[in-house]
Amino acid sequence: MEKAILVFQSDFGLVDGAVSAMHGVANTVDNTIKIEDLTHDIPPYSIWEASYRLFQTIEYWPRGTVFVSVVDPGVGSSRRSVVAETIGGQFIVTPDNGTLTHIKKYVGLRELREIDETKHRREDTEHSYTFHGRDVYANTGAKLASNKITFSQVGSIVDLDLTVELEVGKVEKGDDFVKGTIDILDIRFGSLWTNIPRDVFTGVGFEHGDRVEVSILSGSTVAYNNRIVYGRSFADVYASEQIIYVNSVYNMAIAINQGNFARAYNIGTGRHWKIKFRKVDL
Amino acid sequence: MEKAILVFQSDFGLVDGAVSAMHGVANTVDNTIKIEDLTHDIPPYSIWEASYRLFQTIEYWPRGTVFVSVVDPGVGSSRRSVVAETIGGQFIVTPDNGTLTHIKKYVGLRELREIDETKHRREDTEHSYTFHGRDVYANTGAKLASNKITFSQVGSIVDLDLTVELEVGKVEKGDDFVKGTIDILDIRFGSLWTNIPRDVFTGVGFEHGDRVEVSILSGSTVAYNNRIVYGRSFADVYASEQIIYVNSVYNMAIAINQGNFARAYNIGTGRHWKIKFRKVDL
Amino acid sequence: MEKAILVFQSDFGLVDGAVSAMHGVANTVDNTIKIEDLTHDIPPYSIWEASYRLFQTIEYWPRGTVFVSVVDPGVGSSRRSVVAETIGGQFIVTPDNGTLTHIKKYVGLRELREIDETKHRREDTEHSYTFHGRDVYANTGAKLASNKITFSQVGSIVDLDLTVELEVGKVEKGDDFVKGTIDILDIRFGSLWTNIPRDVFTGVGFEHGDRVEVSILSGSTVAYNNRIVYGRSFADVYASEQIIYVNSVYNMAIAINQGNFARAYNIGTGRHWKIKFRKVDL
Repeated sequence: MEKAILVFQSDFGLVDGAVSAMHGVANTVDNTIKIEDLTHDIPPYSIWEASYRLFQTIEYWPRGTVFVSVVDPGVGSSRRSVVAETIGGQFIVTPDNGTLTHIKKYVGLRELREIDETKHRREDTEHSYTFHGRDVYANTGAKLASNKITFSQVGSIVDLDLTVELEVGKVEKGDDFVKGTIDILDIRFGSLWTNIPRDVFTGVGFEHGDRVEVSILSGSTVAYNNRIVYGRSFADVYASEQIIYVNSVYNMAIAINQGNFARAYNIGTGRHWKIKFRKVDL
Repeated sequence: MEKAILVFQSDFGLVDGAVSAMHGVANTVDNTIKIEDLTHDIPPYSIWEASYRLFQTIEYWPRGTVFVSVVDPGVGSSRRSVVAETIGGQFIVTPDNGTLTHIKKYVGLRELREIDETKHRREDTEHSYTFHGRDVYANTGAKLASNKITFSQVGSIVDLDLTVELEVGKVEKGDDFVKGTIDILDIRFGSLWTNIPRDVFTGVGFEHGDRVEVSILSGSTVAYNNRIVYGRSFADVYASEQIIYVNSVYNMAIAINQGNFARAYNIGTGRHWKIKFRKVDL
Repeated sequence: MEKAILVFQSDFGLVDGAVSAMHGVANTVDNTIKIEDLTHDIPPYSIWEASYRLFQTIEYWPRGTVFVSVVDPGVGSSRRSVVAETIGGQFIVTPDNGTLTHIKKYVGLRELREIDETKHRREDTEHSYTFHGRDVYANTGAKLASNKITFSQVGSIVDLDLTVELEVGKVEKGDDFVKGTIDILDIRFGSLWTNIPRDVFTGVGFEHGDRVEVSILSGSTVAYNNRIVYGRSFADVYASEQIIYVNSVYNMAIAINQGNFARAYNIGTGRHWKIKFRKVDL
């Protein structure tokens, strides 16, 4: 049986030895498995962003791929350590702290199992309470990816309804508008990624080339209000011009071509950052 | 036929899921190919730096290596997507936007082919206009590296003269001086890398141990003017002393030993940053 | 004979082409070896941190693993280039400038050999004096990892007593206290990692749940003085509460749960940063 790829994600950064220790543990389990990284620059403790980055990327990886995600502010608490199998036959090894939110909602989970630490914790780590990424998750992920254990050998089944889920923003559609929240940034380029799917947006009747009224609120404070053209790609607008576009996960997004929208208007992310697209009377 | 290594470069950074999505696509094409990264910290939209980093590194990689470089401010425009074969038998998958400048000029290209997107775009991505790195370049690069397609199956030949090239700075030599531009920084250490080859510099008659007059201008403004010793390596000068040396691509460079020259004098890069080395009367 | 994994560490950062050039050289020696990275974000010229990161991670990697560590402020000087074999049968390729300090002291070295550059330098690099990471260390490490050379073919044996070692902070224990230094930070989370082993700390009689008096001095200046609870893991305290805990290398550490201790109190690292844990009268 072919071995799977093992993909790590964390909020550890790459500046010290933590990620290397996890890779080392995985290579010690089986030095022939292929090991990759999603990102290790999840903002410290941001379970939301860990959940989103998994959602954003796992569909591009082969069936069977094992993801190990370690954003774990509750390390050492009674939070569950689990492996989830997705509808698409991929696996996610993670603390059950909300990291599975987007995958469960938008991709789908088939089965959840609690990691039996008596079997899958690294030997002689009983005095280590602060680095389960290395001692539990990397070790379990590598055993699974290398077929040293099957999914059912991970541990007992947990009811999928018990999965810890973060609250996600709502999308609301009217005759001439659609409202949602700003989920996350395309960080390097400062683009805003909303939770509004392309289909809901176009369902309002917006078409390429339209100028759309965009309002952004932080709580009840207006952070931005202006008209922006809905384009197919950045090439449709001048450099430094603003644009509404469909991002790479097929949700609506806003950018400044070759600029940084988030920084220009001090826009943040989260459920209290509301965005509204409204048709303009011509 | 042996599979090639696939090496990615971009301006996406490693903070979100974009690079992982490209790696995932490549692994989905063939999960046995070896995947590496050049850098993903090219400054956003800097085609110049993408071109330079390829030039700086590709000769150290094996013949046959496939590079995928995605710095693509014109994504969605009519700019061509190409694969170039170098004189040395390596391949570069990239938008044809100037990224091939240094390789064409200093290494040499053998043949250029336009990617046939009807064949090499990922399936079901016809509504994605903003992430060709994932949907076109990673996919095409992985097919080529894994021998699923040959170079000639990439698409039609494009005349090499049509390659988009950025303008590069001139080097001018006189009896007692040589002038050029500051191409790029050795970023972490703040060293200035000029476009002046070692041979041209020594052709003026400079020898190790000489004190050389160095003038740096930003446009017509003098940014630096002083004498610096020409050394073999940093070990020839004290910590915090300045030095002229031959960098790792055999061009002339300037540094502060264990300091940061660029930051100390606010030196930037580009064709308007001129540098002159002149012999000093003793 | 099975090939070993090759693991790179440096202070080059990932923003330019230096690391890629080293990976390329290694792949050119043997394109089938597995190549990984420890970190490339060692602060520029910090031999201490290079030494510590090796110590922190190598035990998690398989026997036989070859580490190449390039923090090399003395490049081009007469400093020795060596390969060290550890007690555990791993190899470290490095300038002999102090990088072996922690491994020698806390793990143990079995044998040290000087790299014979006439044999193991890359061909045609005789005019390159500034990038031994690429031309000497990556090349030698890859030859060793791929079994193209044995350890004894690296070069002549060097007396282990000649290894360059940095001075490390002392640990001092009394009836009701233990004193040491702050070795390094868990950078991303701002936690302080001391040089005080768990066993010495518990030898004073501290137990989980105790409030301990903590004093931190920079030279003779008090930087921090307060009582902190000794917990098993972050889950034992509230978010934003301070905690003393055992870190992942089993030394004593201090953190703010979901905060940043080092930044909160401007704490640095090095031998002049002293820390004292003292029992509190109740």
